[in-house]
Amino acid sequence: MKTVALFGAGRIGRIHAGNLAALPGVQLKYVCDPMGTAAADLARQHGAQASDIEAAFADPTVDVVAIASSTDTHSDLITRAARAGKHIFCEKPVDLSVPRAQACADAVKAAGVACMIGFQRRFDPTFNEARSRMDRGEIGNPEMLVVTSRDPGAPPAEYLKASGGIFRDMLIHDFDIFRWILCADGDEADTLHATGSCLIDPAIALIGDIDCAAVTIRTKKGRLAQINTSRRAAYGYDQRFEVLGSTGMLQCGNLRPSEVVQSDAKGVRADTPENFFLQRYREAYRLEITHFFENLQSGAAFRTSISDGVAAQKLADAAAQSLQSGQVVKLG
Amino acid sequence: MKTVALFGAGRIGRIHAGNLAALPGVQLKYVCDPMGTAAADLARQHGAQASDIEAAFADPTVDVVAIASSTDTHSDLITRAARAGKHIFCEKPVDLSVPRAQACADAVKAAGVACMIGFQRRFDPTFNEARSRMDRGEIGNPEMLVVTSRDPGAPPAEYLKASGGIFRDMLIHDFDIFRWILCADGDEADTLHATGSCLIDPAIALIGDIDCAAVTIRTKKGRLAQINTSRRAAYGYDQRFEVLGSTGMLQCGNLRPSEVVQSDAKGVRADTPENFFLQRYREAYRLEITHFFENLQSGAAFRTSISDGVAAQKLADAAAQSLQSGQVVKLG
Amino acid sequence: MKTVALFGAGRIGRIHAGNLAALPGVQLKYVCDPMGTAAADLARQHGAQASDIEAAFADPTVDVVAIASSTDTHSDLITRAARAGKHIFCEKPVDLSVPRAQACADAVKAAGVACMIGFQRRFDPTFNEARSRMDRGEIGNPEMLVVTSRDPGAPPAEYLKASGGIFRDMLIHDFDIFRWILCADGDEADTLHATGSCLIDPAIALIGDIDCAAVTIRTKKGRLAQINTSRRAAYGYDQRFEVLGSTGMLQCGNLRPSEVVQSDAKGVRADTPENFFLQRYREAYRLEITHFFENLQSGAAFRTSISDGVAAQKLADAAAQSLQSGQVVKLG
Amino acid sequence: MKTVALFGAGRIGRIHAGNLAALPGVQLKYVCDPMGTAAADLARQHGAQASDIEAAFADPTVDVVAIASSTDTHSDLITRAARAGKHIFCEKPVDLSVPRAQACADAVKAAGVACMIGFQRRFDPTFNEARSRMDRGEIGNPEMLVVTSRDPGAPPAEYLKASGGIFRDMLIHDFDIFRWILCADGDEADTLHATGSCLIDPAIALIGDIDCAAVTIRTKKGRLAQINTSRRAAYGYDQRFEVLGSTGMLQCGNLRPSEVVQSDAKGVRADTPENFFLQRYREAYRLEITHFFENLQSGAAFRTSISDGVAAQKLADAAAQSLQSGQVVKLG
Repeated sequence: MKTVALFGAGRIGRIHAGNLAALPGVQLKYVCDPMGTAAADLARQHGAQASDIEAAFADPTVDVVAIASSTDTHSDLITRAARAGKHIFCEKPVDLSVPRAQACADAVKAAGVACMIGFQRRFDPTFNEARSRMDRGEIGNPEMLVVTSRDPGAPPAEYLKASGGIFRDMLIHDFDIFRWILCADGDEADTLHATGSCLIDPAIALIGDIDCAAVTIRTKKGRLAQINTSRRAAYGYDQRFEVLGSTGMLQCGNLRPSEVVQSDAKGVRADTPENFFLQRYREAYRLEITHFFENLQSGAAFRTSISDGVAAQKLADAAAQSLQSGQVVKLG
Repeated sequence: MKTVALFGAGRIGRIHAGNLAALPGVQLKYVCDPMGTAAADLARQHGAQASDIEAAFADPTVDVVAIASSTDTHSDLITRAARAGKHIFCEKPVDLSVPRAQACADAVKAAGVACMIGFQRRFDPTFNEARSRMDRGEIGNPEMLVVTSRDPGAPPAEYLKASGGIFRDMLIHDFDIFRWILCADGDEADTLHATGSCLIDPAIALIGDIDCAAVTIRTKKGRLAQINTSRRAAYGYDQRFEVLGSTGMLQCGNLRPSEVVQSDAKGVRADTPENFFLQRYREAYRLEITHFFENLQSGAAFRTSISDGVAAQKLADAAAQSLQSGQVVKLG
Repeated sequence: MKTVALFGAGRIGRIHAGNLAALPGVQLKYVCDPMGTAAADLARQHGAQASDIEAAFADPTVDVVAIASSTDTHSDLITRAARAGKHIFCEKPVDLSVPRAQACADAVKAAGVACMIGFQRRFDPTFNEARSRMDRGEIGNPEMLVVTSRDPGAPPAEYLKASGGIFRDMLIHDFDIFRWILCADGDEADTLHATGSCLIDPAIALIGDIDCAAVTIRTKKGRLAQINTSRRAAYGYDQRFEVLGSTGMLQCGNLRPSEVVQSDAKGVRADTPENFFLQRYREAYRLEITHFFENLQSGAAFRTSISDGVAAQKLADAAAQSLQSGQVVKLG
Repeated sequence: MKTVALFGAGRIGRIHAGNLAALPGVQLKYVCDPMGTAAADLARQHGAQASDIEAAFADPTVDVVAIASSTDTHSDLITRAARAGKHIFCEKPVDLSVPRAQACADAVKAAGVACMIGFQRRFDPTFNEARSRMDRGEIGNPEMLVVTSRDPGAPPAEYLKASGGIFRDMLIHDFDIFRWILCADGDEADTLHATGSCLIDPAIALIGDIDCAAVTIRTKKGRLAQINTSRRAAYGYDQRFEVLGSTGMLQCGNLRPSEVVQSDAKGVRADTPENFFLQRYREAYRLEITHFFENLQSGAAFRTSISDGVAAQKLADAAAQSLQSGQVVKLG
C-alpha cells in the first residue's frame, strides 16, 4: 500500500484525486491546497483528509507526494519532497526557469527518490500506439514530424501574464512529444527556429506574448520537426501529429464525443474533437498515474523522467530566444 | 443511499459490480452466485459480502436487486424480487419465452416496483447521440433503418444450445434498437420477414440454429428496417446502424482502440473496431446503471422498461417463426 | 475501324456519343432520334450525321448499333439489329417484360451477333475494384451483401407511370449488382422477399408504385443479400454496397466532388456524394463502352451479357410479385 | 478558333496535347520537339503536324504557343513568343533564375501578349474548392497554413543535377500554394526560414542537394505557413494542405483510385493516394488549359500570371539562401 499526499485541489488536482482513489494499493491520505474549502471538499469526496503541506511532509507514512498545485510552487515542493525522502509525481512543468528545473533534478538525484513528470500525452492511447508501432519498426527510420496543437480558445491575457509565454506554457507538451517521437534513439535537437504572431487577441501582444506559433527543429541526425500552434481553433481542441518514416507514415487523430456521421444537404458531418484537455486526455491521466505506481513498485524507469522535464524546458527557452532574436538558435 | 444485491458474478456481473461500486449513493451489499468462490472474490473486491439469494431477498435493507445471472434464472428472480418489494435491474432478456416474460411484467406491475431491463446499447454514447438528434428533428421523419450487428466469432455450438437461437440470443438487441430508433413515436412492427443460413460452422446447423441472418420489418406507418447479422466478422465486433429520414441520414459507426492511421505501400490503415461487447459498450454499461439509480431516485421512467423487454422478445419469436415457415409473419 | 449508329440523343445518348467519339478505332456515323433537332445537334457536335433508324439498319458499313433510346423501344431495336447482323450495345433494361427480354436474347443468339447490356455500375472503378479483390480471394467466401441505393429526389409521379415500377426501374441495377457480387461462382437467387412503402410522395401511391423498398434475397448456397432503396436522400445520390466474406469485408463508398474537409463550430464536414448518376458514373460509362469495343475486337465475353439483363429482370418481377402478395417468392 | 503550337512532346507535353485536342474552338497545329519522332507521333495522334520551332513562330496563323519543353528552354521560348506576338501558356517554372524570369515577365509586358504559367495545383478541384470557400469567408481570416508535399520516391541524383535544387524544382509549387492561399488579399512573405536534410539517398547530398525540407514563412500581416517536403513517401504521392482561419479550418486531402475500404484482421484499409502527379492532377491539367483559352477569349486575368511565376521563384531563392546560411531570410 502506497500512501499519498496530493498538493493542489484545482482542476487537475481533482482529476488526479479521482484516479488515485480508484487505484488498488494506493491510499490518498492528504489533500493540501491554499483554498482550504477546496481541499476539504476533495478530501471528503475520496475519504482523505485536508491538511497543510508541512504536516504531509512530516508524516512518515506518506510515501508519495503528487504535485498538482500552481506552476510557481513546483520547484519548491519537489525540492522539499526530495529532502523529505518522498517519491514525487509532479505535473508539468518542473519550473519555468531551466536552472531552477535543473536544480530540482539535482535534488531528486541527490535524495535518491523517484520522480516522474506528468507529460500525460505520452499516455494518450493513440499517441502511445504510434510510438509502440515505431518501436516495432513499422515505419522504418523516422524522418519528419508534424505536430498540430491548438486550443479551442485563448484565455484572457491577464491569465497568461504568469504563464511564461506560449512556448513554456503551451508548447512545452509539444517539445516533449518531439523528443519522445523523433528522438527515441537518443537523437536530440540541434537547431531550432521559432516564429509567431498575435492574430487573435491584441491584449496578448500587450503583455509581450503571441497567440500563434510555428517552430522548426532539426536534430543532430538531420530529422525535421515542425510544430504549429494556435490559441484558438473554432472547431475545438485539436491535438494531432504525424510522423513520416522511411517505410510509412503514422497519423494520430483527434477523439470525438460520438461516432455519429450526419448527412444532409449541407454535407457529411462528423463530430468536432473532444472539447478540451480534460476530456481528450481523461484516459491518459488515468494511465499516467497507474504507470507511476506500477513502475514505482517494480523499479522500472518512468516513461517521463524529470530530465525529460528539464529538456523540454530548454527547448521552450530556445524557442523564446529565437522568437525574440528572429534568428535560428543552436542547441547544446 | 440505495443498497443493492447483485445476482451473478460472471463476466457481466463483474462489469456491473465495478460500476455499482463507483456510484455515489449506492452500496453494493451482497454478491450471490452459485459459484461461491466467484461471488466471494467479487464481493471482497468491492467491500461487499457473498450471500445466498434467500438471504438477500430476506434482508429488508436491500432496496434493489441487480440480476446478471444466467438467462434461465431471470424470470424466477424477477418474480421473487417483485414479491419481495425490491426494485429490479435485470440484464436482457427478460426470458426466452414471451409468456413467461409477460408474466414477469405482470408481477412487476402488480408489486409496484421499478424494473429496468439492461438493453445497454440505448446508452452507447454514439447510438444515444443519434436518437437525441432524431428527437430534435435533425433528420425529419425517420423512414428506413439499416442495422449491422456482427460478432467477431461464433461461440461453440455446445454453448449455443441453450441460447434460444440467434434471434433470441443475438438479435434481441437489434430488435430493441429497431423499436427505439424507428418507433419512438409509438409506431410498432406490422410485418416481419426473417431468413438465414448456417455458413460458418456446420455444428451450429446440427443444433438447429443458423449463424447469419437477414431480417426485414415493416412498421404500421410503413417504415422499413433491415437487420443483417453474422456470428463472425473477421475484423472484429461490428456494431453500426444508419437511419434515413426525410431530411437527412445518421450513421453510427464503430469505436476504435486508437485513432492512429498508418500509411504504407499496402494502404492507409485504421484500427479495427473495439474487439468485443465488453470494450465497445464499457461506457454504455456505466451510463446504464447510472441512469437506473438516477431515475429510481427521481421517479422518471426508465429508458428501457420491462415492456420493452417483452416487445423485443415478441419480435424474436416472430423472426424464429418466419425462418421456420419461410413466410412473412404478421404481428399483433 | 468500327462504325456505329447511335439510337437516342437524350441525356444518356449524349454521354455515349461523347465517349464513342473519343474512342480510337470507332467512328460514330449516325445519330437517330425521334426529336430530329436533338439528333442533328448531337451528330454535328461529333462529326456524325442525323439519320432515321431504317437508313442506319440498311447501311452495310454500320457494324454496331448503340441503343440509348426510351425503354419501350429496346426490344424492337435489339431484334431488328440482330436480324440486320449488327452488333449491339443496349442500355439497361432489355425490356420491362421478361418474356420479351428473353425473346431478345433468343434473337441475338440466333443471329450470332454480339450483345452487351449497359449495366454501367459493373464498370465503376470502386465497385469493380471490390469485385477484383473478391476474385483474388481477399475476403474469402462471400456470405452477405448489403446494398444501399438511393436517389437524391423522386421524379414526378407522372414520369414514373411508364417506368415499370421501382423494382424494374431503379432496383434493376441493384439486382444486377447482387448477381455480379454474390453469384460470381454460378450461385443464383433461391428466394426473394420484397416490401416497401410510399413515404415521400402520395402521388406515387396513386399510380400504384412505392418510393422506398427493402428486398432480401437468399441464394441457393445460402448467401444473404439485403437491398435498401429510397427515391429520396436529402444528401444526394447514395450508391454504396458492402460485402462480408469469411475472412474480411469490402465496403464501396460514394465519390465526392472534392476532398475538402471543413471544421468549424458546427462539426467536421466533408462533401456530399456526387450529385447524380451522370456525375457518379461518368467514368463507368467511359469504361463500359471501351470494354464493349475491346471485347468485340478480341472476341472475349462481355462483362454484362444479355442473359444478365434477362436475369435481373426476373428478379425485378419476383420483387414486384412479393410486394403484391406480401409473401416470399421462390425462384426457378 | 485559336491555333496552337505545342513545344515539347514529353510526359507533360502529351498531357497538354490530349487536353488541347479535346477543347472546342482550339486547333493544335504544330508539335515541336528536339526528339523528332516523339513530335511526329504526338502530332499524328492528334491530327497536328510535327514542326521546328522557327516555322511555328513564323506561321502567322499560330495564335498561341504552349511551352512544355525542358525548363532550360522556357525563358528563351517565352521571350521569342512575346516578340512574335503569340500568346503564351508556359509550364512552371518561368526560369530557375529570378533575373531571367523577371526579364521574361518584362518581355511579355512589353509585347502586350497574354501569358499564363502552369501552376496546375490551383486548378485541382479540391484545392480550388478550398480557395473558393475562403473567398466566401467560410473560415474567416486565414491565419496558418500547413502544406504537406511528398513525392513517392526520389529520382536518381543524376536527374536532379540540373533541377536547380529541391526548392526550385519541387517546392516551387508549394510556394505558389502559399501565395495563393495565404496572400489572396495582397499579403506577401516577410521572412522565410528553410532547413533540410539528406536522409533518403546519400548521392543527393553529393550533388549538393537535400531530399527533405522544412520551410516556414511569416507574412507581413503575421500569418504563418509551414511546408514539409520529402522526396519519398512509401505510401505514394502525398499532396495535402490545411489552412486555419479565425472561424474554421479547411483540409484538402488526397484522391484515391477507388473508394473501397477493406476490413480484415489486419485493420480497416483504404487505398493509398493516386500514385503520381499525372494521375492526381489529371483533372487539374484539363481545367487549367480550359481556363487559359476561356480567359484568353474573355480577356479576364489568368489565375496564374507570369508575375506569380516570378514571385514563387523569389521564394525558392530565399529558401535556398536560408538553407545555405542557416539563418532567416528577410524578403523584399
